[in-house]
Amino acid sequence: MTKEQMQQFFADEFPQAEFTIDELGHRCATIRKHIEFKHLRPGGTVSGPVMMELADAALYVTILNEIGLVALAVTTNLNINFLNKPESEKDLIAECKLIKVGKALIIGDVYLYSEGKEDPVAHAVGTYSVPPKR
Amino acid sequence: MTKEQMQQFFADEFPQAEFTIDELGHRCATIRKHIEFKHLRPGGTVSGPVMMELADAALYVTILNEIGLVALAVTTNLNINFLNKPESEKDLIAECKLIKVGKALIIGDVYLYSEGKEDPVAHAVGTYSVPPKR
Amino acid sequence: MTKEQMQQFFADEFPQAEFTIDELGHRCATIRKHIEFKHLRPGGTVSGPVMMELADAALYVTILNEIGLVALAVTTNLNINFLNKPESEKDLIAECKLIKVGKALIIGDVYLYSEGKEDPVAHAVGTYSVPPKR
Amino acid sequence: MTKEQMQQFFADEFPQAEFTIDELGHRCATIRKHIEFKHLRPGGTVSGPVMMELADAALYVTILNEIGLVALAVTTNLNINFLNKPESEKDLIAECKLIKVGKALIIGDVYLYSEGKEDPVAHAVGTYSVPPKR
Repeated sequence: MTKEQMQQFFADEFPQAEFTIDELGHRCATIRKHIEFKHLRPGGTVSGPVMMELADAALYVTILNEIGLVALAVTTNLNINFLNKPESEKDLIAECKLIKVGKALIIGDVYLYSEGKEDPVAHAVGTYSVPPKR
Repeated sequence: MTKEQMQQFFADEFPQAEFTIDELGHRCATIRKHIEFKHLRPGGTVSGPVMMELADAALYVTILNEIGLVALAVTTNLNINFLNKPESEKDLIAECKLIKVGKALIIGDVYLYSEGKEDPVAHAVGTYSVPPKR
Repeated sequence: MTKEQMQQFFADEFPQAEFTIDELGHRCATIRKHIEFKHLRPGGTVSGPVMMELADAALYVTILNEIGLVALAVTTNLNINFLNKPESEKDLIAECKLIKVGKALIIGDVYLYSEGKEDPVAHAVGTYSVPPKR
Repeated sequence: MTKEQMQQFFADEFPQAEFTIDELGHRCATIRKHIEFKHLRPGGTVSGPVMMELADAALYVTILNEIGLVALAVTTNLNINFLNKPESEKDLIAECKLIKVGKALIIGDVYLYSEGKEDPVAHAVGTYSVPPKR
């Protein structure tokens, strides 16, 4: 699958998903979100739920790239630590890699960055339940 | 603080926060969100990020009710398990209670329900970092 | 199943499991561990891994009571927050209740207490993977 | 600090801590535990609590290497995912790296391996509360 095909899948199926796919690799992917005023909270930082949403989306993209475009993959657990204050005027970037691809569960690790910054703004680990036969 | 005052605080400071406060109690609170089409994902269920956002908001409301309307409380960790498929046509309700009120960290537990259903749709535990002197 | 039968199962299968079952109920259980010198860390408090072990054991007991004495239930995720310093001279008590009993995953919530104290010393949420046909 | 000094600190202060320090680096460390019969559970696999204990110890070693040998660092949160069945006859190895070194909280990421195997057996993320002035 190319990243254009994956991007098209999200445009068709999840039109409200506002992110761009930068890279799709073997059990890894990088996506980005343009930060706008509506994503900020007082103090000029990106809101926590925007970061959670992007982390979850990065997991979903990476998992679909592994198992194919099945709609049935669902998040069962997400654990997120907020590490540093994100920049309000930079894109938010999520780098995901899968750490376990099992028959029923797939687990991945996501680092979130403000573009151009070295220290991550958040780190998440998420589990998806996937259809058993694929 | 009354729930009307708390609701007004969110209307002023977080106009994009779309929830209503049902109850404010001692170290507990219940809030609700009206589910609209934009909150759904394919299959007619509420999207995970909408649930994460409401769980985080329930923690924030309950913590502000405990420590006063300081803007400096920030989420440091959120762990969420998705338990059952939410209903697309019911309000989503979040019941939070605090399980630790420390000097620097406050931890709370949140159950999310589709209105009128007994089984929770999700369960979250979150930690906020709060200003040390208050 | 009676708690004596469950206790016997652990004595036979997990002889190193050092806890006593106080109560077995519908999707809930309470177990306790006698704290000895070997369970302490400097400062006279119970070590974190002892608490993690008891939380995991409480989940296992509660889940086996639900699904029968199958050996195949395994922990897939455990999230624990340490809340208050446990007492070195009190039994450690774990109260577990199941919050989701699914076909493949069972999730439970555990509060740990030093006996006789009202505030919990830790709170855990754990997920077990269970055999699909039972 | 050398790894011999760190090892000596654990021998003095935590004599029950049964692990060896393989490497100490900048914000990272690798430790190992020799697996014995008492660490196994039925089916010939390493018990979950043994893995949780080693993950927590790896975090503690890495954090002490960063902040000095202060006894006051305590775990506040640990989230662990069990990924693959560990080998009963191999050492268990924990590789930790710190992902956030803050004034009050330090967060690290730990992968656990059975020696010689490529796929991790578990992955943990843990938070320690550390003394504010150091």
